[in-house]
Formats: sequence, structure tokens, C-alpha cells
Amino acid sequence: MLRLSTPGFKRFSQCDSFNVIYGGGEANVAISLANYGIPVEFITLLPENDIGNCALMTLRKHNVGTRHIIFGGERLGIYFLETGAISRASKVIYDRSNSAISRIEPGIIKWEEVFKDAGWFHWTGITPAIAQGTADVCLEAIQTANKLGLTVSCDLNYRKKLWKYGKKPSEIMKNLVEGCDIILGNEEDAEMVFNIKPEGIDVTKGNVTAQAYKSVCQQLMDRFPRAKKVIITLRGSISASHNTWSGVLYDGETLFEAPQYDITHIVDRVGGGDSFMGGLIYGLMTYTGDDQRALNFAVAASCLKHTIEGDYNLVTVGEVEKLMAGDASGRVSR
Amino acid sequence: MLRLSTPGFKRFSQCDSFNVIYGGGEANVAISLANYGIPVEFITLLPENDIGNCALMTLRKHNVGTRHIIFGGERLGIYFLETGAISRASKVIYDRSNSAISRIEPGIIKWEEVFKDAGWFHWTGITPAIAQGTADVCLEAIQTANKLGLTVSCDLNYRKKLWKYGKKPSEIMKNLVEGCDIILGNEEDAEMVFNIKPEGIDVTKGNVTAQAYKSVCQQLMDRFPRAKKVIITLRGSISASHNTWSGVLYDGETLFEAPQYDITHIVDRVGGGDSFMGGLIYGLMTYTGDDQRALNFAVAASCLKHTIEGDYNLVTVGEVEKLMAGDASGRVSR
Amino acid sequence: MLRLSTPGFKRFSQCDSFNVIYGGGEANVAISLANYGIPVEFITLLPENDIGNCALMTLRKHNVGTRHIIFGGERLGIYFLETGAISRASKVIYDRSNSAISRIEPGIIKWEEVFKDAGWFHWTGITPAIAQGTADVCLEAIQTANKLGLTVSCDLNYRKKLWKYGKKPSEIMKNLVEGCDIILGNEEDAEMVFNIKPEGIDVTKGNVTAQAYKSVCQQLMDRFPRAKKVIITLRGSISASHNTWSGVLYDGETLFEAPQYDITHIVDRVGGGDSFMGGLIYGLMTYTGDDQRALNFAVAASCLKHTIEGDYNLVTVGEVEKLMAGDASGRVSR
Amino acid sequence: MLRLSTPGFKRFSQCDSFNVIYGGGEANVAISLANYGIPVEFITLLPENDIGNCALMTLRKHNVGTRHIIFGGERLGIYFLETGAISRASKVIYDRSNSAISRIEPGIIKWEEVFKDAGWFHWTGITPAIAQGTADVCLEAIQTANKLGLTVSCDLNYRKKLWKYGKKPSEIMKNLVEGCDIILGNEEDAEMVFNIKPEGIDVTKGNVTAQAYKSVCQQLMDRFPRAKKVIITLRGSISASHNTWSGVLYDGETLFEAPQYDITHIVDRVGGGDSFMGGLIYGLMTYTGDDQRALNFAVAASCLKHTIEGDYNLVTVGEVEKLMAGDASGRVSR
Amino acid sequence: MLRLSTPGFKRFSQCDSFNVIYGGGEANVAISLANYGIPVEFITLLPENDIGNCALMTLRKHNVGTRHIIFGGERLGIYFLETGAISRASKVIYDRSNSAISRIEPGIIKWEEVFKDAGWFHWTGITPAIAQGTADVCLEAIQTANKLGLTVSCDLNYRKKLWKYGKKPSEIMKNLVEGCDIILGNEEDAEMVFNIKPEGIDVTKGNVTAQAYKSVCQQLMDRFPRAKKVIITLRGSISASHNTWSGVLYDGETLFEAPQYDITHIVDRVGGGDSFMGGLIYGLMTYTGDDQRALNFAVAASCLKHTIEGDYNLVTVGEVEKLMAGDASGRVSR
Amino acid sequence: MLRLSTPGFKRFSQCDSFNVIYGGGEANVAISLANYGIPVEFITLLPENDIGNCALMTLRKHNVGTRHIIFGGERLGIYFLETGAISRASKVIYDRSNSAISRIEPGIIKWEEVFKDAGWFHWTGITPAIAQGTADVCLEAIQTANKLGLTVSCDLNYRKKLWKYGKKPSEIMKNLVEGCDIILGNEEDAEMVFNIKPEGIDVTKGNVTAQAYKSVCQQLMDRFPRAKKVIITLRGSISASHNTWSGVLYDGETLFEAPQYDITHIVDRVGGGDSFMGGLIYGLMTYTGDDQRALNFAVAASCLKHTIEGDYNLVTVGEVEKLMAGDASGRVSR
Repeated sequence: MLRLSTPGFKRFSQCDSFNVIYGGGEANVAISLANYGIPVEFITLLPENDIGNCALMTLRKHNVGTRHIIFGGERLGIYFLETGAISRASKVIYDRSNSAISRIEPGIIKWEEVFKDAGWFHWTGITPAIAQGTADVCLEAIQTANKLGLTVSCDLNYRKKLWKYGKKPSEIMKNLVEGCDIILGNEEDAEMVFNIKPEGIDVTKGNVTAQAYKSVCQQLMDRFPRAKKVIITLRGSISASHNTWSGVLYDGETLFEAPQYDITHIVDRVGGGDSFMGGLIYGLMTYTGDDQRALNFAVAASCLKHTIEGDYNLVTVGEVEKLMAGDASGRVSR
Repeated sequence: MLRLSTPGFKRFSQCDSFNVIYGGGEANVAISLANYGIPVEFITLLPENDIGNCALMTLRKHNVGTRHIIFGGERLGIYFLETGAISRASKVIYDRSNSAISRIEPGIIKWEEVFKDAGWFHWTGITPAIAQGTADVCLEAIQTANKLGLTVSCDLNYRKKLWKYGKKPSEIMKNLVEGCDIILGNEEDAEMVFNIKPEGIDVTKGNVTAQAYKSVCQQLMDRFPRAKKVIITLRGSISASHNTWSGVLYDGETLFEAPQYDITHIVDRVGGGDSFMGGLIYGLMTYTGDDQRALNFAVAASCLKHTIEGDYNLVTVGEVEKLMAGDASGRVSR
Repeated sequence: MLRLSTPGFKRFSQCDSFNVIYGGGEANVAISLANYGIPVEFITLLPENDIGNCALMTLRKHNVGTRHIIFGGERLGIYFLETGAISRASKVIYDRSNSAISRIEPGIIKWEEVFKDAGWFHWTGITPAIAQGTADVCLEAIQTANKLGLTVSCDLNYRKKLWKYGKKPSEIMKNLVEGCDIILGNEEDAEMVFNIKPEGIDVTKGNVTAQAYKSVCQQLMDRFPRAKKVIITLRGSISASHNTWSGVLYDGETLFEAPQYDITHIVDRVGGGDSFMGGLIYGLMTYTGDDQRALNFAVAASCLKHTIEGDYNLVTVGEVEKLMAGDASGRVSR
Repeated sequence: MLRLSTPGFKRFSQCDSFNVIYGGGEANVAISLANYGIPVEFITLLPENDIGNCALMTLRKHNVGTRHIIFGGERLGIYFLETGAISRASKVIYDRSNSAISRIEPGIIKWEEVFKDAGWFHWTGITPAIAQGTADVCLEAIQTANKLGLTVSCDLNYRKKLWKYGKKPSEIMKNLVEGCDIILGNEEDAEMVFNIKPEGIDVTKGNVTAQAYKSVCQQLMDRFPRAKKVIITLRGSISASHNTWSGVLYDGETLFEAPQYDITHIVDRVGGGDSFMGGLIYGLMTYTGDDQRALNFAVAASCLKHTIEGDYNLVTVGEVEKLMAGDASGRVSR
Repeated sequence: MLRLSTPGFKRFSQCDSFNVIYGGGEANVAISLANYGIPVEFITLLPENDIGNCALMTLRKHNVGTRHIIFGGERLGIYFLETGAISRASKVIYDRSNSAISRIEPGIIKWEEVFKDAGWFHWTGITPAIAQGTADVCLEAIQTANKLGLTVSCDLNYRKKLWKYGKKPSEIMKNLVEGCDIILGNEEDAEMVFNIKPEGIDVTKGNVTAQAYKSVCQQLMDRFPRAKKVIITLRGSISASHNTWSGVLYDGETLFEAPQYDITHIVDRVGGGDSFMGGLIYGLMTYTGDDQRALNFAVAASCLKHTIEGDYNLVTVGEVEKLMAGDASGRVSR
Repeated sequence: MLRLSTPGFKRFSQCDSFNVIYGGGEANVAISLANYGIPVEFITLLPENDIGNCALMTLRKHNVGTRHIIFGGERLGIYFLETGAISRASKVIYDRSNSAISRIEPGIIKWEEVFKDAGWFHWTGITPAIAQGTADVCLEAIQTANKLGLTVSCDLNYRKKLWKYGKKPSEIMKNLVEGCDIILGNEEDAEMVFNIKPEGIDVTKGNVTAQAYKSVCQQLMDRFPRAKKVIITLRGSISASHNTWSGVLYDGETLFEAPQYDITHIVDRVGGGDSFMGGLIYGLMTYTGDDQRALNFAVAASCLKHTIEGDYNLVTVGEVEKLMAGDASGRVSR
């Protein structure tokens, strides 16, 4: 996807140039993983023109495998971004109609071949929201991944403006999430997609917030029994320039809670969720059996994302671990 | 007016380019109003060169009517701006001597014609500060507006460095303000121009600050009996990067107080008062009879101005009302 | 020294341009002093190419004397800077090996001539860290300065990554610091260079922090009896975007403590210590006998430095004194 | 239309920003005319988002009337431009599928109302190439214009890549051009659209090139008897940086030939034809009865366009007439 | 003087930033000389604000002496520059009214002191064009220089738009030029200022152009008998992007002619004459007795100026001599 | 290698930013080949820091294999570039002392492994010029390549300023070139490295220039009998902005001559030779047996390079073949 953003804090009408970045939900996760040293392949359909090729070069630059990418369709989806400040929200204008990926259909990607030697498949709720074809291909991929024994993760990533091809998110997403081992969402996704809200909270007992998250996670697990872990990212929007950031992970028994970070001078919050997912997959792969640590890595990684311009995260394992270890002092490293 | 500002937080001596914006007190108010959908005409004298023409194009771009603008004089007034940060103040260097507008004289503008179909006339204390001619033309306009039944508003806008042509501000301003229905000022203007200070405050009773503002407003109304509303903008300067912002409106009986906003990461505070005035005029015109709402609109609009680069505000009614409704979270709108 | 920094908050891999500034520890101090109106000469060895010449021009532009600068060697030392934000630290990559100054040797600079009419000599711990030659020349200068009766000041400025030519910092620095009248360091320098830590602190009594600093200062004075004043800069790193900043000065009897500034939206913290030293030398020269005022000037000056892009400070005596007087409101000066 | 172009001579893959300009065939003609002081209204359908609004603001800035513009549809058409040099051609990537204008249908624009007080209607071959709806609306406009007695002009403007909705250009264009009084094309348009080639040229007699153009013009006139003038722009592409430029006008009797300009250091050649058309309409309106002068104005105006960055021309009548008068010396005007 | 120029080839209305350069006729000559290693002092009146100070810093950066500069007045003169291309001329808008220098009066500069140890005084026709005061001070300087035996040179530099204070150029300039040893002008200056045109040319004999220049030079010498050398710069304006450039020097007997350079891709032609003068003074000082070489140096130096952005020349003696020696190949020097 | 270049035509002293590009002789050839679709691996030693990593990312972005790259050493070599214009030459300042690659030694690269599945090895004369170690490793590579039957090509690429480690170029290069099948040089390389000059030219017979090149090629072949083809690039430096460009290829029998291109508005000529080599290798690999076509491809490819900013070429096979086919018109491709 091509992101065209206004420089600094300019409004659209003040610009005679746009900053250019090639990213997108799943691509952002892929770049995070490649940065952490995890071999990763990105699967998509790109238009066969210079703009599509620029997207490809961005992936290659960041060491994301591109050998399964297919060329076709007419255009790369675009979104315009105006970065907000304080009480003025950032603004996104989607211009994705008729994008190359919306033309994909089952059978085009040879999933069995793609998944050879792979251990993990990740998708997000953005893809099935685009078109019936992308939803079908997503299902095709998940079913193949399940068959071949890959771990399947998803980020629910509900985007109201996208679901336009006549199907209800709940309907489509149900079949897809059923094949998932790991489910990630933010505070609203579960309600928006599956109408799941906190239940049975006893305000007389302990941490009400924790009970609420646990209730949501438990309901998701009940509905999707394959899921072994449900993760919720927690953003507190104090202003466009200042957020809090944390997350919880539930494994069916324990609700792990990460420390909360105070993000006081946001550089770019777009891609926060994707960088969380990238950190989480890395954490679950690397700190096997230590879900708390995996969660903490995800939260710290995505906390750092807010200091990085662009959609995808550009930090190293060392930088994330330094923050996990409690050093948020920002002392010059020299 | 031509604003030449240093990029980012650079000092003058660090720059090999200046950012260029065409604005100015009354023009900023006009652009605000045009953004809110109010038909507006801007009256001035511009030099007949490319720089004057660029000023004209800025007005047209923002849908401000320009058909009464007259060309003449030699140069467009300039000011240089260095944007401060934290404990370093922003710095303004005026270079307005001999500007086109300073050459204006009574009779040049056909006010009767200009005011045909108009309902409101707004001027600021900057204009009569420039030259005897601008003061005279201002008086001419106010008197015509009074005669034709327009609402007349003013922003006292005291600028010490401007009053150089040998007259005292109090002397000149008295005649002008006498024709006004709406008077706006910041905390210092009333004292600087008319030597009006808070009086008769009873510290043993209630809100001392409110009493002080009420006293100032009441004195202004006593001295200028035509005035139906007096408004004071309230800025708390914690640092160059962090201000608080609010305002009060007094209608002769009630002192309406707006909520106070915490502006934590200022992008550009120049033009804050003008954007307040633009919001206020819109509010008074639109929310007839609801002065509290008009005041709140003005404060919220100008709060948002602090997130916008340049002298004039670039926000929509929808954005202001969202903030008035309490949503300062800055969540990405997508 | 040539600083190549990434624009905005970009990471190295995101840049297709670097910002260029010519600075360096002692040069930064010199520019501060020249800004305050103190006649100052800078002594160094610059490569005879355009890059060396650009460094020279920067000094001249800021009114630093350059008539004793010698040309030779091969290259100007470089450092790459990536500016951090919030929890992501700024990052410095040194590329100084084989720099022109590293080729200097005793006898090259005619110190007696250089010091004619001079009253003060300042050096920093960066210079002797580079090579045996720079350490030797430093000693040569200090001894000559001592002989001629100049005040000698130093900034310990410990940089672990520099000491590579086989000598221990303690060993080299001991001889050099022995010739100093004024010693400045940050919280770690004394320990890193001379293994001096706070001692004999009685936690039951008063201000423990003050006792700690006093203990360190006293030990330095004991070990270097020539020293008349020891100064410690105090940085609290809340995040890369938010620091606190202060300092203490000890004259052997009294520990003067400066007010602490809250630096909430850091523009550039590199060169903070150098700007402190520049302010301190100015203060000690100007407010003779009023060490508190000298210290306060140094702290206020370097507080302002954090609002300035680049390595060296660009503020006037008036601006520093305004802040010393308590005005940190950042109100637009117009 | 939104043009996103690479800065300088960068290729797409080298850019992290694109320059932004809002233009398009007919809009460019409209801006030219507004610059020359001709009152002009632009009719289109713009998406109701910030990008559509920016296009509107560009028109307003340049004094083009926008009161008949309608909002609707989803997106503004985009094209990406990479500016070539010497032997490397400029490259255009269209991304116009599903643009707002492609959704227009007969009945949406109230042409009778639009044309009230108008004297001239101009359209280009780009519009009917987009969709059946745009072709239908174009026909609707032309027929109304004919009925109301407006002069109708067209620029054939053949763009092979656009005609995708299943109709042949010849078929659609025939009906449209039949209503035109003035027909403009470049060397290839007549052949590409109507298969008209030079005929009956007698190489033994005089100016063969002139005969060829005359033959093409005559055939166009024979086929479209309403046409009173046919104009052909003549570009000689020596390289991407160096072109020659001229044009001929045929009125059914005489072939007027303009001087040929040598454009040696092209800044931006996009919009050359549109600026020709703008100049031509101005010329025909202003120099009534002097077709040679009208043609010369058109050629000189569009020659100057090649010195202007962006799609539309930004020159004054004075500047064009200075060049027509033979002054191409480029002496500084001061 | 502050030059504000549009970036690249943008027109004024396309810019949201201006490039900033501090220069001006005599300052440009001074910088040229300083670059060639000639000790030089610049005398002027600068406003005491940051803009004036930036002008000062530019001089210091380029090693021009500033110790005789006086502060006063209100503003620094400004000119706006739009760089042309091909057939579109560069455009200059002056905004110099009321500049600091226009306030100067006899007695302010202590010329006897300024000229101590000086050997050469240079002035241009721009200075006396500004105001009676500048003309008076100019005369004062020339008379003192004559008395003290300095060589006096002038560049006639006729600027029609400047002479506004009621005196004729011929009247004022006569008295000033009478004190000059070296007179420089371009092809028009002699006619515009003194109404001197070529006379007595015998078209049947040899080089008519040379005869014409000789005639003009001879008449100047006749009228100003102190003059020992008259020099004329010769610019052929093929287009705004392509000029030819040369010059002649007449010593009362011989007319020396320099080679003509073809300047095919002009970067910036402003300051061409000043860089010629700088080169000429250097040449006359250095190649004593070899006027041909001095002239060639001047022409080559100013030829190179056309490759340099900004008002003043930035080339070394080595670079000029390489071009004088015939190497215009532009081979990479590595 | 890190290239830091001044923007536009600025001189070093005018810049506050440098453009950043990572390239270098052999890397440029590798990127050319990757662009043409040839699988290619680049072998080097990069410093293990962000700057080294950026170089790596550039290679990956352009699809150059990096799996044999080794990390070590201290710094990436730098060169500073100031782009000239017209009669002012571009200027290069090398800052490569102590670069990572200079630390390489035989045995570090496992050439047998690297060359597995490879068919061609290319090196340039820059590498052995750096240090004894790089020369030794180069020899090691060539001998292994010879043993394994790879085609070996070299670009003599003589750079006087580099040969500083005490060996004569002729001495070192002799052993290396002996192992080469293809030898490329520019007009000076053969003389500078091997003292080979044109011989036995009969000015009374035909094309003297062709005889001269043939003589040089023949002598190179005589001295290096393994060589099957010798190629000479031919640059005519009319000015820094205007060159001619061609080349000849000699196969021991026939001297193939390419067409000469007139490069009239040079964007960036650095890397011209490398892009020639990239084109040549592609041509020889692809148009087997058609040396004329291979040569023409090389010349056309490198002609296009002059339109591309940066060290390496960014053109496709299609673009080169279009130019080979004679289309240098630069018509917009749309």
C-alpha cells in the first residue's frame, strides 16, 4: 500500500508535497519480524508498474522475502494521512478501490508451495474486508495452513469503512478466525466484529478492568476453541500527541498484563498494532513458554514504534529488550 | 502581510530558507469565517506586484471575497518569525514600515458600496496603530457600518511596537471602539489601551478571577455603552511549547466561562486570538441566543489553531464541534 | 568536527539526506563565549580541504578567532547522529579515526604566542582521549598556561569509546587535571575517570543528594589541589524528549545549587554540557565573586541550548538572563 | 486531477516524497484563461473529501469560477509523473480508474443554467475517453452549447490508454466534434482518432510540410463542416530536455504558420497543449479577426509554459506579448 | 541586503518557502576579494536586529572584515528574485525603501580612520541612487580616499528603478566618478548615466564592435581624466538559460579584449558584474602591469559565478586560473 | 561506500545538508546487472554499524545478493561530491582511509564457496589501489575464478589519489589483469597504469582516432594474452554540463565502434564507467556472439546513466534498447 502523508503537521490543503512510504498491515508485521532476524515471506498481488515495484523494493530493502509475490491488477491501494497534534486527530483518507489485491481469487496463490518449510501464517482482518476474493483466498490460506500444521495468527483489525462488498464482517470473519491459534485485537475489535462485550463482572472484587478483558478473551476462546492465546492491545488516547499503551494476553487460564507505557511525544502512531503483532510473534517464537515475556516484548516494541515515522517499525531486538528492562530514559547512546 | 518564518525550531542565523505564509490579523479572521461557510469579503490595499498578488491568491484559495480589494502603495508589510520552544520564546521582527495599507486615506474605499448586503463589520486594533490614515479609514468604516446597521466587532489587539505616528492608542481607539457592538481583548489589552484594571474585588467571596474579569468587562461596557458583549481570551503561558487556553464572555449581566484547554505540544500559536475571533463571530451568528455555545465554539476553534502551522486557522465546523463535545483524544479518524 | 544527523526523528535507514553541522566540544564552548561577547580564539588542526574549510567558516561566522588554527592531516572527524524520541535514545556513531587533530604533536602549536594577551584556557577530556599526541599537546598547553598565569578550566567529558590508544584515562587525565583551576564534570565523569564516588554520607542528616555531590567535589579538590571550583552538571533523563537539568558548584566551602529546569520538549540535547561550560566561563568572568550567579547563568544557558538544533548554543546574554530571572513562559516577544 | 511527481529528475524508486499539483486538461486551460483576465467557470465532479477540496482550492486560488462544480463519487483521479532528461523520457503512470468524474451521467449538470451568460465552451478528448457517462455528458453539453449559440472548441487530445469502456474513439468523437467551431490537435491526433492522413502532396511544389498540415486540416473541415478553424500544435522532440515548438492554424482558406521556438532547457513540458489552447482561446477572443496574432499568442504562451513547473501555465498577457514581440533574451527584469 | 528567491524555477505564486541569501553589490565584490585572499573591510549601516546580524555573519563567514560596520536604521533592504528559464526572464522585485543604509549621513563614518592602511576603495552606482545621504557619504569617502592616495574604483551599475529622490543620475554621478581611477560599466551604463554613445565609427575599417567600445571608453576617459582604466562587461543574452560573457579594458591606448565564454546552463546570473569587479581588482592588484591578464581573470571569475547559486562568487584563484588556462571541460576533479 | 553530495549545484560551503547515497565502483556494476535481471552477488566487508547496514539495505533493495558479505572493520569509506556546472568541474573529496574494506586479508572470503554456481567475476582497479590486503584478496579471487573457469572482467579505473601504500599500480595491476578475459578502461587508464600509448599511426590513412584506439587495445592484448576483448569508453568533456559519450570494443581482430551520444544536460555523470561495465557484461552475456550489440547496449545504458542522480544506474533493459533503437527523443511515455 502506498501511504502519502503530509509533512510535519500540515493539513492537506497546505501541502505541495507528500511523504511517500510503502507499507500495509501484514507488510508491517513482516518487516518487524525481518528486523528481529526471523526469516519471513510476504504474499500479495502487486500491480506491474513502478509503484508496485517500489512496494516490492521496500520489502526487499528490509529483508522480507518476496519470491511468492504475484504481479497483476491495475493499481496499488493508496491512503492519504494527515498527522494530527494535541486535540486535532490524525486523518486518514482511503483510496483503495480497485486495488490489485482486490482482484485476487482462490487458486492464484499456490499455498501448499508457499507454506513448504514455513511454521507460521499471519493474516489481518483488513484483507477479508476488501472483497469476496480476498476473503476466499484468506480462507484458502488458513485451511491449508491448518492442514499443514502451521501456527495461524490473526489481528482482527476491524475497519468499518472497508466492508463494502455486501457481506457482514461477523459472517466472513467467523470462518476465518476458526482456523486461528492466536487472536489479537484492540479494545473495540471483539465487539465490532463478534459483538462480544465484557460479562459477569463483579465490581466488588479486585481489578474490574482485568475482569473485563478476561471476560472478552474467554468468550473469544469459547467461540473459537482452536485459539490458544487471545491478546488485546490497550491504547489510552489522552491526545493525538500523548497516549498510554499496554496489552494483555490470556492463555485460557492466566491473564498476563504488561506494564503500561506513557508515550508523551508521539512521532507516528500509525502501525502501532502491527508492530505489536510483530513483537508478539517474535516473542512467542523466541521466549517459548514465557508468555509474560512475549507480551512484554510486544508492548515494548510497539511502544518504540510510536517514535518511528512511517507505518512499519524499525527497531532491533536489543532496543526492545533495553526498554523491557526498564530503561526508558532515552540517554544518548555513545 | 507576508510572514517569513524559520523552519522547525531554527534560529534566524541557522536558516537558508524561510517558510512563506500570507496572513494578517483581519485576514486570519476572514479565512476562519470562510472555512465555516460564512460569506466574507476582505477589504485592504495591496501593492501591485507579485507579492501583493500572492496575498490575494491566498485569500481566494480560502474562499474569502476579494472584489473590494484595492491595489496601490509600494510594498506588502513583512514580519519575520522565529518559532520558540520550551523556555525560548518565539520572536517576531516587524518590517512593516511604509507598507501599502499605511498609505490608505479616507475616501479611497467606498464603504457604502462595500457594506451593501453585509451584516457584520470586523476590525482590529492593529489597523489604526499603523498610521493616521488607517485610523481615519477605520473610523470612516465604523461610522458607515453604524449608520447602515451592521454589527461591528473589534479585537483590541494592542501592539506596543506599532503605535509610532504620534498619537496615543487611548485617544484613537476611544472613537473607534465607541462604534462597536462586540469587543474582544486579551488579558492585557484593556489595561494597555484604556488603563482599565480589575476593581472592587472581594477576596472573601467566591471566584476572585471571575470577579476580576467581570470588573474589566463591566468597565469597558460602561465606557462604551454601545457594546453588547465583551470577550476576553485567557492564555496561560507555561512555556513556549505548553499553554492553557480559555475565554470569558460578558453580556452585561452574566459572565460566561468556557472550559480551559491544556495545549501541550504547540505547533504554532501565532494567530490564536484571530482564530478565537473567527470562531466567536461564527458562534454568535449561528448559535443565536446561546452565548455560552458561541464562546465555547470560539475557544475550541482557537485551541485547534495551535495545532496548525501558519497564521490562520484551518479547521471545519465539524472538527470544532467534536472538540466542544469533549473529544480531545486525537484518535485517528479512519 | 562534522556532524551528520538524520532529519526530524528519522532512523539512519530512512534517510536520503543528512543535516550538516560543524562543531565539537571545545568549539561549542568557544561559540557560546563569542555569542556572549567574549573575545575567543580556537586552536585546532584542520584538514586542508573544503570540509576543513567549512569548519573554519562556521567558527568565523560566529565570531570565534581562527588565526591560530593550523592546517594539516587528512580528514575531519565525523559523527553520525540519529535523534531519538521518548523511549528511543539518540544514537551516536563515531567516525573519528585518523582525524586531522589526531596527528598533532608537541611543538606544532606555539603556545606562548597563542597565549599572549589571553586570560583563560579551556580544554575537554575528549582531546587527550584521541591519541598520545593530543594528550601530549594538551599537557604542553596546560603547563604553558600555568606558567603564564592563565586560568585553566576543563570539562572531564569522559567518552568510553574514544580511549583506544593504550593508555588508561586515569593515568593521562591525572597529569592534565593537576593544572586546572576549574573542573567541570557530569555525574559519571568523576567515577569513570578517577574512580571517585560519594563517601561518608549520613542518610539521617538533611539533603543526601547534596552531601553526595559535595563529597565528590571535595575528593576532586583533595586530589587536585590547584582546583578552586568544581562544578557538576545534573541531568535527569525522564525520556529522550523530557529531561530535568541543573548543576552544583563547590568552591571548597560552599556547595551552590542552581534551580532545576524541566525541559519538556527537547529539540536537541547534544552539546548541553558544552553550553553549560560556555555559560560558566562567561559567568565566572562577568559576575566576579558571585559564584551562585555564575552557576545560574551556566544552567540557564544550557537549559536554552536544549531548544536549539545543532551542537553549539545560539543564545544571547539577554535571553539567558531573562530565563535566570524566572521567565520561562515562552511568551512571543513582539 | 492529482499529479504526484518525483522531485528533480529522480526516478520513482529514489523518492521518499512526491510533489503535489492539482490540474488536468480542461482545468489547465481554465487557469490559463483566468490568468489572462478572462472570466471562466470550470465544470466537473469532485469527490467530497480533502483531496477533492484541494483541487477546488487550486482553481479558486487561480481565479477560476467553481460555483457549478458538483461533489460526488469516490476518488480524485491520480497520475504519477517521473520527469525525464536528455534521452530518458518522462514517464506517466495513470491511476484514474473509478475517479469521481467517471461517475457522471446526463442530467446531473444543468447545462442551460451553466451556460447562461457564457460565450464559449471548451472540452477535450480526455473526457469522453473515460466512460460512457462522461461521453454522454460531453455530448449533452455540446448540444446545449450549440443550441444556445456558444462557440465550442475542443482539443482532440488522444490518449490511447484511456479508451477502455468498449467504444471506439472514432465512433464517440465523431458525434462530439460535429458540434465544434474550433478544433485543436497535435500531429498524431487526427490520424489516431479519425484516421486522417496527409493527402495529395506534390513534392515538386513548395513547402511540403505546409501542404501536409493543410491537407489534414482540410479533411477535418470537410468531415466536420461546423468547424471554422483547425489548429495543429507542432512539437519537435530533440530530447527530453530540448524541444522545438510551433503551430499552424487553418481557417478553410489560409494556413497561418507561427514562428518556431527552440526550447533548450525544458523545465516541465506537461500541459504544453493545454497552455496552447488557453492562449488560443484568449487570442481568438481578444485579437478578433487577426488569426495570425491569435496563433502567435498561443504558441508563445505555450512556449513559456515549458519554463513553468506543474501542469498549468502561469504567465501574464504581458509576458506572452513580450515573447511574441521577439524578446526571448531572458534578460533580468529589474 | 536580504535576497529572497524562489526555489528552482518556481514562480512567486508557487512557493511556500523562499531561499535566503545576504548579499548586495559591494558586499559581493568584498566576498570575491576575501576568497582570493585579499584583506578587505566592508563599510555599511545595518539594522540592529537579527536580520542585520545575519548579514554581518555572512560577511564574517567569508572572511570579510566587519569592524567598521555601524548599526542603526530600521530594516535591511530586501529584494525578491524569481529565477527565469529559457524565454522567461528572471524577475526582481525591490523592497528597499527605508532601508538602514538610506539613513546614512556624512560624518557618521570616520573615513580617515577606515582608510588607514587601506590601498583601494570601491563603490558602485547603486549606493548614490538610494538617497541624498548615501550620495553625500559616497562623495565624502571618495574625496577622502583621493586625499589619502587610495586607488578608487567604481561600477557604474545603473538601476533605473532606484533613482527616486529627485536628483538626476548624471548630476550626482559626475562628481563621484571624477574621483575614480578605475571605471567599470556594462554596455548600457555609460549611455544611461552619461549619455555617452559610440562615435566616429568607420564601418569600412576592421572590428566595428571594438571601435564602438573604444569610443565609449575614450569618451569616459575624456570626461573623467583621473580614470586610468575603463572596463566594459559584455553579456550576450541568448536566453535566460544561455548567455555569452566577455569584457574589454581600455587604458587610454590599447583596448584589451578578453576571450568570450559560452555559458550554456546558467545556474544563477545575479551578481555577474560584481564578481567581474572582484576579479578585476584582484587581477589589477596581483598581475601588476599585465592588464590583459587582469581582464582575463575578471572575465573567467565572473564566468564561473554563473555556476554558483546566490549573489556572490565562491571560487578560488586556482579555479579561475584553471579556466583562464583554457580548461572549461568540467572534468571531475578527483 | 557512502557518498555525501551537495544538493543542486551548491558548493560545500553553502550546504546545511548533504544528499546520501550508498554505492561504489563494483556495487554500481552489480546494481546495473540486477536491474537487467541478472542474478548477482556482491562481495565486500562492511562495518558492523548502522552506516554499514544502510549500504547493505541499498544492495538488497536493488536485488543484489548479499549473502557473502562479511562484517568487520571500523568505518565505511566516504566521498564528498560537489556537482559542477558548465565550466566549473565537479569535485570529489575522498575520505576512505581506514575503511572496513582496507582491512580485508586473504583467507577471509571463501572464494571457492562464493564462486559455486557463478559464471562471471568482475573487479575494478579501485580495489587493489586501497591496500596490500585488498590487492592480495583481489588476486586470490582472480586466481580462484580462473581455476574454476569463470569469465573474469576488470575495469582498470585508475585513481591516482588512491595508490598510497607504497606499491606501483603497474606492478600490482599486472598480476591481476593477467587473469582477465575482458578488460575495460577509459582513454587514460592504459597509459596511466601500463604506459601504453597509441603507436604506429599512419595519418595518411583513414580514421586516425580508430587506429589509435586499436593500437592501444592491441598492445593490451599482447601484454595480457588471456584477454579476449578490450573495451575503451570515450568521453568528450565539452563542459561539466555537456559531454559526448561512446566506446569501442576490440576482439583482437575487429574494432567495433558504438554510436556517439550527445549528453547535453547532464544530471549526474558519476558512475558513468560503472554503468558502462554493467551494460557490457549484460550485453556480452545476452547477445552472445554479437559484440557490436553488446557494445551498443553498454554505451546506451551508460548514456542514460547521465540522466540519473546517484552513483548507480537505474534503467531497464527496455529503456536501454529503446535508446539503442535510435529513440532519443525523450517523448513522454503515457
